[in-house]
Amino acid sequence: MERTDAEALDRADPLAHLRDRFDLPDGLIYLDGNSLGPLPRGVAERVARLVGSEWRDDLITSWNAHGWYDLPATVGAKLEPLLGAEPGTVTVGDSTSVQLFKLLVAGARLRPDRRVVVTEPGNFPTDSYVIDGVARLLGLSVRWWDASSQPLADVLDDDVAVVSLCHVDYRLGRMHDGAAVTRAVHDTGAVVLWDLCHSAGAVAVDLAGWDADLAVGCGYKYLNGGPGAPAFGYVAPRWLGVVDQPITGWFGHATPFALERDYRPADGVRRLLSGTTPVVGTAVLDAALDAFDGVSMADVRRKSLALTDLFLALASERLGVHGVEAEVPRDHAARGSQLCLRLPEAYGFVQALIARRVVGDFREPDLARFGVAPLYTRFTDVYDAVEHMAAVLAAGEHRRPENVVRAAVT
Amino acid sequence: MERTDAEALDRADPLAHLRDRFDLPDGLIYLDGNSLGPLPRGVAERVARLVGSEWRDDLITSWNAHGWYDLPATVGAKLEPLLGAEPGTVTVGDSTSVQLFKLLVAGARLRPDRRVVVTEPGNFPTDSYVIDGVARLLGLSVRWWDASSQPLADVLDDDVAVVSLCHVDYRLGRMHDGAAVTRAVHDTGAVVLWDLCHSAGAVAVDLAGWDADLAVGCGYKYLNGGPGAPAFGYVAPRWLGVVDQPITGWFGHATPFALERDYRPADGVRRLLSGTTPVVGTAVLDAALDAFDGVSMADVRRKSLALTDLFLALASERLGVHGVEAEVPRDHAARGSQLCLRLPEAYGFVQALIARRVVGDFREPDLARFGVAPLYTRFTDVYDAVEHMAAVLAAGEHRRPENVVRAAVT
Repeated sequence: MERTDAEALDRADPLAHLRDRFDLPDGLIYLDGNSLGPLPRGVAERVARLVGSEWRDDLITSWNAHGWYDLPATVGAKLEPLLGAEPGTVTVGDSTSVQLFKLLVAGARLRPDRRVVVTEPGNFPTDSYVIDGVARLLGLSVRWWDASSQPLADVLDDDVAVVSLCHVDYRLGRMHDGAAVTRAVHDTGAVVLWDLCHSAGAVAVDLAGWDADLAVGCGYKYLNGGPGAPAFGYVAPRWLGVVDQPITGWFGHATPFALERDYRPADGVRRLLSGTTPVVGTAVLDAALDAFDGVSMADVRRKSLALTDLFLALASERLGVHGVEAEVPRDHAARGSQLCLRLPEAYGFVQALIARRVVGDFREPDLARFGVAPLYTRFTDVYDAVEHMAAVLAAGEHRRPENVVRAAVT
Repeated sequence: MERTDAEALDRADPLAHLRDRFDLPDGLIYLDGNSLGPLPRGVAERVARLVGSEWRDDLITSWNAHGWYDLPATVGAKLEPLLGAEPGTVTVGDSTSVQLFKLLVAGARLRPDRRVVVTEPGNFPTDSYVIDGVARLLGLSVRWWDASSQPLADVLDDDVAVVSLCHVDYRLGRMHDGAAVTRAVHDTGAVVLWDLCHSAGAVAVDLAGWDADLAVGCGYKYLNGGPGAPAFGYVAPRWLGVVDQPITGWFGHATPFALERDYRPADGVRRLLSGTTPVVGTAVLDAALDAFDGVSMADVRRKSLALTDLFLALASERLGVHGVEAEVPRDHAARGSQLCLRLPEAYGFVQALIARRVVGDFREPDLARFGVAPLYTRFTDVYDAVEHMAAVLAAGEHRRPENVVRAAVT
């Protein structure tokens, strides 16, 4: 495998032009879009207009005049095709943790006679923290499913109210079969809540096709909505008139500005809202999603798999000699949009790569994680990144003192 | 009373120079800062830097390199002096509705053997909605206190867990005695949760002096933090190590990036956080609060009262002849930073004023509400506004067809 092979893949890539929709730093190979997506073009202008014109000049009237009030629906409508979601089923607001909290409670209320929430020990920790918190609040118990060793059927019974799973695992990138899991959950009479943080914008998600009940996801990873972007929430059409979330703030009311005494949930997915829409952050996400305009998620998925296939082949060819093992599901159907390398000096390895302007991230205790984002990651980026990785390992840069002293939180 | 009298008040105003800290539209008299504060200078530059440099160039490393991770504490430290709060007791994030939800549950958990939440029917409706929602979730009951006709003692007994009150009423601007109410609540063994949405940045708040337990408030009214700005939460020092909020997301964890399996709340007020900090909106609030740099809240309060005194005197002198009644507590100690006019055509009246570039807002069914914000409202603004009001009433502009057809939500 030569660099010219990667160049040929870039030339043949039908999504190659999408990279121009991002304002990427020169010379940086950014493989950390699954922590924070880069800046899409148009966002800076949108924010400048929002602050310097809409807010400055039109003040409170902008809620109508500039569509601030409708932003959750506007952004939801942009997300629906990326998620395979029916029109009018997605809204945005709050953090993922808060969205997850609301939909876990709502999910449990759909099955009031059942007392168990099923989830995985390998969840992103905030999922486990929030699930534990909801279980304690509602007097439910949590049942842990070890998907690596146990069939799902083993943990399902007629006491399970909600099964809450990360579609793509944040560490090793293992992806669940959304349709099969949803079917199994429904067969036992429970509802499923999908966390799409590491899926949305990177892999094919088909909420309607899966017959999913509820879902949440993150705005700032593969959706590139900026640091701490609002999260999204999905409610299946059959639950829209029923779903009953616990944080009954005025923006989820049927007529917020009538300031009625009693809470009446809005028709439709707007009832997931609680407080006033965070306009600036939501507008950033809205502008960022224009990077997906006209993009087929099937094409995105195809390129994502081609990128990780290349990554895996190169890693096997060039890093295996250094005893470094690639961690990525070999089966396409079970693979997200990332690849990890496992080595004891993973922290120093990631630091040494950053010094070479190749950005991935470290996950305790021994993983170096690299996300590929089909909208802007090139095949040559993967090629060049692996060249740098091989050079780091050959020169022992990952063991140099300046790379192994851990900084504060990253 | 002549305009020259108002001009003299402006000349003598020690806070007059603060108006230059805002980027206000020319010729607009903005008396709606209690719905959405205007744009402080420096905010547009801060956002441009955050997006175009910190996010664009430094990407994920900005969490450390540009202080994103510490933003809740940074902004909290700017708010503490405005709230009379002890250092390390205030943080920001989420909407007011979500903050209120979290602190209501946390407050009830401080008094687990008590089953009643006391509040007022005149709350801002989202407070009532959220309180009803929490009561339902926890199996508590809500007891309504009609502060206009009933002593607080009548609704307090040893079954009351939490008393949740708006310090300043959003409609008529009635302000509670923070110290006296807190003392009465403590005497009965309950905890108090103050909603400071219509107080923070406009009136003197003294959480430490009141001996308050918990508080929340809004970032986008008198604090000018932009549309849908993050809200703040306060926890008294004696509860910091104890308070137990229900949305246990990773940003409230003691060591979020260690990704531990089990939730351990952070020491201090950071445990109020749930999801990832909404960086863009929080940075806007951070920059906006520089407008309060070096400002004494005692001076702010003094000017606020002088502005509403002038407003009341002018309204009595010039609007009473049209049968329009000013609604504002006569007692300074019970007055917020606003004044309402009550008239059946309040909607048309507000519209007619907007056409004259005087912005207040309408509150169902018959109130025209005007906020005064001491950092940028001039005495001449109040004078000129009342002149416009008198002209509207004299010409019957408030009854003209174009002013009485209601627009959609505002």
